[in-house]
Amino acid sequence: MEVGQTHVEHAEITPELVREFAKVSGDYNPIHLDEEFARTTPFGRPIAHGLLSGALLSGIMGTRFPGRGTVLLETSLLFKRPVFVGEKIEFRLRVEHVRPDKPIVTIACQIFNSQGELTAEGETVVKTS
Amino acid sequence: MEVGQTHVEHAEITPELVREFAKVSGDYNPIHLDEEFARTTPFGRPIAHGLLSGALLSGIMGTRFPGRGTVLLETSLLFKRPVFVGEKIEFRLRVEHVRPDKPIVTIACQIFNSQGELTAEGETVVKTS
Repeated sequence: MEVGQTHVEHAEITPELVREFAKVSGDYNPIHLDEEFARTTPFGRPIAHGLLSGALLSGIMGTRFPGRGTVLLETSLLFKRPVFVGEKIEFRLRVEHVRPDKPIVTIACQIFNSQGELTAEGETVVKTS
Repeated sequence: MEVGQTHVEHAEITPELVREFAKVSGDYNPIHLDEEFARTTPFGRPIAHGLLSGALLSGIMGTRFPGRGTVLLETSLLFKRPVFVGEKIEFRLRVEHVRPDKPIVTIACQIFNSQGELTAEGETVVKTS
C-alpha cells in the first residue's frame, strides 16, 4: 500500500440487506424497517443503519482493499446525510498514511449517494497482513 | 437522557453471528472464518470482525439505550484487543454529554471480554427521537 492509492466501489442498499443487518445487529429500530414509523420522522421514509455502511466498508477492507488478513485497529465515521433504503452508494477509499516501521495503514473513506452527495466520511487504521 | 446515565449488557459472539456478519458485510476475510488461516496469524484462532461489535452497539442504541428512533451522527471505535469467536463480551455505555438546545447525546462505550479486559472503546453521537 502506498499513500495516494485509491479504490472505488458501489453497493446497493436493498431492503433485504437492511433486514439482514437488523437481524445480525439486533437493531430493529423502526426508523430502518417500518415505513409507517419512518413517515413520522424528518426523513419521511426508511433509512439504512449508519453502521451498515460501516459493515460494507469492513467488507471492502477485509477482502479487497487492502484485502484478506486485514485487521481494523481504529475506525471513525461521521454521518452527514441518511442513506435511504433502496439507494445505491459509492465508496471512495484513499490511503492517507503508511507507517514506515509496521504494516499499519490509515485509509480515508467517503461514501456518496447516487446524487453524488456525501453521506458519510471517516478514517480507518488497519494492520495489513 | 442525562449525563452519567449508564447501561450495561452482554452478548455472545457465536460462530453463527460471525458468519451472518460476514454475509451482510461481504467481509469473508479468512481471519474471521477459517481456523487454518487464523492459526497462521499472531492471534492463533479466528477473531470476530471489529465492526460486529459496532453493529451490536448500534443494536443497543437503536432499540434500548437510548432506544427506538435513535439516529447515529458520528461514531468511533478503537480496537484494543481481538474478540475471539465464541467469547462473551460486555458493553458498558455512559452518557457523556447532552446538548441543551437539541436532542443530541454523546455516549461513550467500552467493550470488555469475559476476562474483564478492554477489547474496544469509543464514542457515538446520536440524535434521539
